Amino acid sequence: MCGVIGICSKSNVSTSLFYGMNSLQHRGQEAAGMAVYDGEEIRRTRSMGLVIDAFTEEKLRELPGTIGIGHVRYATASGSHDYNIQPLMGFIGGEMIALASDGNLVNYQILRERLEEEGMMFQTTSDTEVILYLITRYYDGDIVEAIKKTMKVIRGAYSVTALVKDKVVAFRDPHGFRPFVLGRDGDDVIVASENAAIEIIGGEMTRNVEAGEILVIDGTGIHSDRFESEATARNCIFEYVYFARNDATLDDINAYTFRRRCGEILWEEAPCDVDLVVPVPDSGIPSAIGYAQAAGIPYGEGLVKNRYMGRTFIKPTQKEREMAVKLKLNPLVDVVKGKSIVLLDDSIVRGTTSRNLIKRLRDAGAREVHMRITSPPVAYSCYYGIDTPNRKNLIAANQSIQEIEENIGADSLAFISLEGLAKAGKKDVSEYCTACFDGDYPVDPTLI
Amino acid sequence: MCGVIGICSKSNVSTSLFYGMNSLQHRGQEAAGMAVYDGEEIRRTRSMGLVIDAFTEEKLRELPGTIGIGHVRYATASGSHDYNIQPLMGFIGGEMIALASDGNLVNYQILRERLEEEGMMFQTTSDTEVILYLITRYYDGDIVEAIKKTMKVIRGAYSVTALVKDKVVAFRDPHGFRPFVLGRDGDDVIVASENAAIEIIGGEMTRNVEAGEILVIDGTGIHSDRFESEATARNCIFEYVYFARNDATLDDINAYTFRRRCGEILWEEAPCDVDLVVPVPDSGIPSAIGYAQAAGIPYGEGLVKNRYMGRTFIKPTQKEREMAVKLKLNPLVDVVKGKSIVLLDDSIVRGTTSRNLIKRLRDAGAREVHMRITSPPVAYSCYYGIDTPNRKNLIAANQSIQEIEENIGADSLAFISLEGLAKAGKKDVSEYCTACFDGDYPVDPTLI
Amino acid sequence: MCGVIGICSKSNVSTSLFYGMNSLQHRGQEAAGMAVYDGEEIRRTRSMGLVIDAFTEEKLRELPGTIGIGHVRYATASGSHDYNIQPLMGFIGGEMIALASDGNLVNYQILRERLEEEGMMFQTTSDTEVILYLITRYYDGDIVEAIKKTMKVIRGAYSVTALVKDKVVAFRDPHGFRPFVLGRDGDDVIVASENAAIEIIGGEMTRNVEAGEILVIDGTGIHSDRFESEATARNCIFEYVYFARNDATLDDINAYTFRRRCGEILWEEAPCDVDLVVPVPDSGIPSAIGYAQAAGIPYGEGLVKNRYMGRTFIKPTQKEREMAVKLKLNPLVDVVKGKSIVLLDDSIVRGTTSRNLIKRLRDAGAREVHMRITSPPVAYSCYYGIDTPNRKNLIAANQSIQEIEENIGADSLAFISLEGLAKAGKKDVSEYCTACFDGDYPVDPTLI
Amino acid sequence: MCGVIGICSKSNVSTSLFYGMNSLQHRGQEAAGMAVYDGEEIRRTRSMGLVIDAFTEEKLRELPGTIGIGHVRYATASGSHDYNIQPLMGFIGGEMIALASDGNLVNYQILRERLEEEGMMFQTTSDTEVILYLITRYYDGDIVEAIKKTMKVIRGAYSVTALVKDKVVAFRDPHGFRPFVLGRDGDDVIVASENAAIEIIGGEMTRNVEAGEILVIDGTGIHSDRFESEATARNCIFEYVYFARNDATLDDINAYTFRRRCGEILWEEAPCDVDLVVPVPDSGIPSAIGYAQAAGIPYGEGLVKNRYMGRTFIKPTQKEREMAVKLKLNPLVDVVKGKSIVLLDDSIVRGTTSRNLIKRLRDAGAREVHMRITSPPVAYSCYYGIDTPNRKNLIAANQSIQEIEENIGADSLAFISLEGLAKAGKKDVSEYCTACFDGDYPVDPTLI
Repeated sequence: MCGVIGICSKSNVSTSLFYGMNSLQHRGQEAAGMAVYDGEEIRRTRSMGLVIDAFTEEKLRELPGTIGIGHVRYATASGSHDYNIQPLMGFIGGEMIALASDGNLVNYQILRERLEEEGMMFQTTSDTEVILYLITRYYDGDIVEAIKKTMKVIRGAYSVTALVKDKVVAFRDPHGFRPFVLGRDGDDVIVASENAAIEIIGGEMTRNVEAGEILVIDGTGIHSDRFESEATARNCIFEYVYFARNDATLDDINAYTFRRRCGEILWEEAPCDVDLVVPVPDSGIPSAIGYAQAAGIPYGEGLVKNRYMGRTFIKPTQKEREMAVKLKLNPLVDVVKGKSIVLLDDSIVRGTTSRNLIKRLRDAGAREVHMRITSPPVAYSCYYGIDTPNRKNLIAANQSIQEIEENIGADSLAFISLEGLAKAGKKDVSEYCTACFDGDYPVDPTLI
Repeated sequence: MCGVIGICSKSNVSTSLFYGMNSLQHRGQEAAGMAVYDGEEIRRTRSMGLVIDAFTEEKLRELPGTIGIGHVRYATASGSHDYNIQPLMGFIGGEMIALASDGNLVNYQILRERLEEEGMMFQTTSDTEVILYLITRYYDGDIVEAIKKTMKVIRGAYSVTALVKDKVVAFRDPHGFRPFVLGRDGDDVIVASENAAIEIIGGEMTRNVEAGEILVIDGTGIHSDRFESEATARNCIFEYVYFARNDATLDDINAYTFRRRCGEILWEEAPCDVDLVVPVPDSGIPSAIGYAQAAGIPYGEGLVKNRYMGRTFIKPTQKEREMAVKLKLNPLVDVVKGKSIVLLDDSIVRGTTSRNLIKRLRDAGAREVHMRITSPPVAYSCYYGIDTPNRKNLIAANQSIQEIEENIGADSLAFISLEGLAKAGKKDVSEYCTACFDGDYPVDPTLI
Repeated sequence: MCGVIGICSKSNVSTSLFYGMNSLQHRGQEAAGMAVYDGEEIRRTRSMGLVIDAFTEEKLRELPGTIGIGHVRYATASGSHDYNIQPLMGFIGGEMIALASDGNLVNYQILRERLEEEGMMFQTTSDTEVILYLITRYYDGDIVEAIKKTMKVIRGAYSVTALVKDKVVAFRDPHGFRPFVLGRDGDDVIVASENAAIEIIGGEMTRNVEAGEILVIDGTGIHSDRFESEATARNCIFEYVYFARNDATLDDINAYTFRRRCGEILWEEAPCDVDLVVPVPDSGIPSAIGYAQAAGIPYGEGLVKNRYMGRTFIKPTQKEREMAVKLKLNPLVDVVKGKSIVLLDDSIVRGTTSRNLIKRLRDAGAREVHMRITSPPVAYSCYYGIDTPNRKNLIAANQSIQEIEENIGADSLAFISLEGLAKAGKKDVSEYCTACFDGDYPVDPTLI
Repeated sequence: MCGVIGICSKSNVSTSLFYGMNSLQHRGQEAAGMAVYDGEEIRRTRSMGLVIDAFTEEKLRELPGTIGIGHVRYATASGSHDYNIQPLMGFIGGEMIALASDGNLVNYQILRERLEEEGMMFQTTSDTEVILYLITRYYDGDIVEAIKKTMKVIRGAYSVTALVKDKVVAFRDPHGFRPFVLGRDGDDVIVASENAAIEIIGGEMTRNVEAGEILVIDGTGIHSDRFESEATARNCIFEYVYFARNDATLDDINAYTFRRRCGEILWEEAPCDVDLVVPVPDSGIPSAIGYAQAAGIPYGEGLVKNRYMGRTFIKPTQKEREMAVKLKLNPLVDVVKGKSIVLLDDSIVRGTTSRNLIKRLRDAGAREVHMRITSPPVAYSCYYGIDTPNRKNLIAANQSIQEIEENIGADSLAFISLEGLAKAGKKDVSEYCTACFDGDYPVDPTLI
């Protein structure tokens, strides 16, 4: 999980990139990087940490130019190394290129080995470097052709923004796993992982970057091309369950509406007679609202979130995750004391967070704590960019729902069905990537 | 508005202070400071900006010691100068003292002048320096006596934590304007502006620091004394309306419950026949929940808040406030499009934010936007620590509700009554300070 | 030992102060501070470390204004605390004052105690705070009168620059212990510890600030006044021996010429039949040149100094001093191998440095190492601003020259006589402060 | 011009690398980088600026490991970009490699183009990347063979240190343009640009890394191999004239002795009847000593250098150079007033510095200023790593000695002869690279 943005404008873009990247911060808090082309060269700043810490006003001034790209990085398997912070950069056809990607290649390792055998030297452990090297290798003056040749070789999930000379280039894998949208602000063109990045800088989303689409954006406009393949769109359903902002409308489905509907459907599938419906903030809020309204049970915020720190799921180590849980959510005694409650959350991964929350809610006086989850059990690892742990650490891969219920100490536990989930988005299950729930991998993660 | 914390422990306190200060971050984002006594001397670190930026792990290591205090500062009239960052520090009776305060003295200027006439030199423009200098002047080996003499002289609002030799000292003005609570974590004792700071480090709030109370906390326990006066407690009602966290239970009233009730009462006082009740996050959420439930109208989050930036009301300049509004809240088109909505917010100060939000909601497709405010019109300046602007900038001091309604472009506008507000806290109006609404100043701000 | 500078100009002074402070860096490397008056208020930046590290271009931009002062601090007995970094600052008669001093008050402790008894609170452990508080206390609209009253009370060494409203104020103790010069650059007026600070910014030294003189410098010119006393000038002779730059002409004596003459006189007093005269860089260079020329023996640099680190004598701890010796000076094998040499150094304080150097020169192949010192044995502590250690750590206070010779492992050792030293400056011994050599303290350091 | 160091030890090396790099700081002040192998991976820190600023104690702690390399970079033609800071890093045969070089490849451009044609992507504009990529490409499990193949292809000057798995690898071009020495500290092995880096950490230089030699250093010892070629050693003579420290003994010639002899020879070739011999510090000091002793004229330091800033020749822009001249050297009026002097300097490149100094010495009262230069006129650009400007900016490429004399305003001007210079090192002219003086380029800079 990462966030990407690219802007082609008539005026300086570094401040707009900064705000856009801030609005994508929920997609990655480990590192942030920006590259801007000033007419002569590409300047880049990269740093571990939040966007707001990585970029001072002074640093933004040192990145002048009217086209640029940005990236926020989630902690991933490739490791927390400085050299992995995107955009990556290099020289192609005598000019500079900068490139950043959201997603994950399933055939990264084998492509890297082949390129190394051919004499390439890798400088990072990020799969984005493979994309960059392949484009360079195939480049012969025509960037779209080079990208098409690259897309023929790489397999997996990628929403890529790049700076190539005076152009912003964007392309998305044929399955469209990761979100990617296009917008305008007057003459300025913006591509980004989510529409919030477009809206925050005053623009409007116009459409999706389609699965398999290749865009070249410069002063003359937006040039669209396609990588032809037999793949059909399989948007990651977990974006709607958890990752995207509530205001995201990705591939024509709004995340908030999706989540509220999940709550309603979950009430139908697994009702619960309690005093209060309580969300795990922030991702459980819309579904708790939906559940409460469908049920006619009062909705109440029984957990207070500290607004000045990061997000639970995003921290790299188990220990940090536990610290974060303890730090960020504080039960609201006055609301939960003496009440039977149903707690709405988006997913159960390891079970640690749920167990911890339920215990703390009971300590705060909750009489009963039932748990309703707006996604099916996560029983398979993701190979397309979401940092789900190894299967052996996925509680649902190893325990029955009954066992999980006992394990986390809930009075009752229910997950939404996969069909229910798909229905929330008004698409068929087959139109999503649901691999983490059912192991149906659109791109084979084990072979190439 | 500021936040204070003090910890007396058997083990190192800098990390606990750090987390406690983080949980008070909503009370002040302009600057942060910490002072820790290591058995020989007090070490201090102060910095402009958020707690998380001001204190690295390395800086915390450089502040060893088992007792310490911390402060987060809101931008106030005394100006954004480095030298004003608290805790202030000095030498008293051959030992070091560090002191930090939440509140504002109404007779600061005249006390300062008197002290200057007597030859004192001020090094800051913070009223906290007057408190520090008076204690020093009155100190004769007995810190409690020095504080009592100081409290006889200073007028206004103050919740003070100090380090004096090996003790944490805490005292609160006779009206108890600003919140102040006491808690324990095993043998450790914590005082803080809000209970979240106690709970986050694993402790439990035990009671309030009472109005007029003086606490001396050291290895031998908690020693309580009182400054005798005829003043009665007048807790700032705006803490419940806006400032305190939802999980704060201050002077026996929980903020979340208070706010939810405000919504219910507001529905009774000013009903509104709409499709959806929408909160202005975060402070409007509990009252919108209450309003919706009382009304039987669906509740929905129509504005998405960016979780990675600060809070609207806290920024110092008008221009920054407008930027912040535009940046932080994004209308959720899918939720509001074609709907008539009622927007719940905690207060209208200048009117700019409301006008902006209403316009953006209409742009996003809302058919009707009604506004309900969970506080009466703010028509008077606060002299007790809340940074309300000069009366000439308070929209409610200059316009009728009708005029404001037009000004902000609402389809209808209503404020809760003062009696309704007081009722939400189950106290009488006379038990609160309500000066910002009715001009009834418990301490005369113009004389001394 | 510290360095001070003050500039009154028609244009911005922060950059000039920066360069001037850099040229005084040899007088103090522990911390640096600058205060500039912008017509409305005084802004200040202070930091531990070198001038070049403390002030970035951005920080200089944030200190606009046409009058300002600067200070570089040597590590002194008052301790390495942030709060001691000068200039100190405060409010006097409703306006801001900033003040910085080079020197040391012998009656600091008793004055501080008296002021504390009267209710003053100290915020530092620097004696400069006493000066600042006394001026504030005596101030009644006439700054010169306030300074005169202050000078009546304080005893010891001080060369002070201050910003008072729109004026640079400078005054020097009646003995003129520490250097202080005055210069011009067109209409700009500069006061500084040494003339290099004037010359580096393009100006010219015009005269000394006289012992007991008080200068008020503003747009209308330089106003001179005097504090009347019976004291006679007793300039610190150690400034010429060690501290001042070679290009310093302080109280009409040039440091380089003084040092070269010391070498000549030392040859007359203690000749030595060797192959080569080698200086301990940098302070031993001029005297080695003088010694070599008087003797007709070749001069050669047998020790290479690393130009990118600080100065030996200036580091605060014994361990750091030893590290510094090992790091900074590297024997030049090719020059010293097989040679008998005489090593010229300015002083022997603890003996550690000399012992170390002699050993390393022998390891590098020197056949004989004789030592000649251009100051008499340092046998008494300084109370006027030079950080000589306690007498028990002064090797010459505890050992005979014979014993020191053996202790440091020299083939022979000789010190210049006090009369010889005075002669180098063409003044009488009684015209200098020579307390560190003979215990003749112009101001009684034990009483007041 | 750069400085390199590599250490293979039994204990942590980051602190030793830090001190060693400090002792090489004169070879490059623009940027500094360090890479350390911790047994599992190579960690790297790179930063613009001085070593002392780039590495804090904390950063050194974050670079644990017993083998490592360091690099200090001089501002060169490749541009002041972050991405060019060495060591460069990559993955070779599944392991990490880090590599740093002092020197310059004359066929960098053509090699880069060829590699790009083959599909390689460059990420820097540093010629060191070509070396790194070629080694990777040729690597087949045997690092020495890969280096030999690389050396067959690259042409120019290079002294390279690299980390390859658990080994320090070092190799030097067949002409040995840039210096490179080897030393020991007990079992630890150190390679470095100059012996000072070995001595500062307590070790001893044992021999040179020979021209064309390849060293592999690991726990089992030092393994030497050779790249066979017909090239003969042509050490850069300008290292002795200017760059190396006085204590450097490079390819068996000590820099201080070389420089002193230059002064003696220059006296023979161009005597001058004056009152005083004055060096331009620091590089003119040994030759001024030699000149003075040969002439029997007094030697005196007439220019004071500020010890707390960098070195004249090293700053990248003309404007900065002029600032630096003005800032760093202050004439010593007392020494030069009324005197006829001869000024000894190492070289005249643009003439600006000399003109400036002569003017300032006359302003300070010097009656006559003669100039003697310890190198022949610099009339040709260097292509082997010294940042001499383009020929059109070399004053000696465009003016006769007579014209230069007038241009800089000297009473007389003389340069040492090339034969005289070579004699100072007791080698034949043909054993040096003297291209910058006579255009005799050992490696053709225009072809390949």
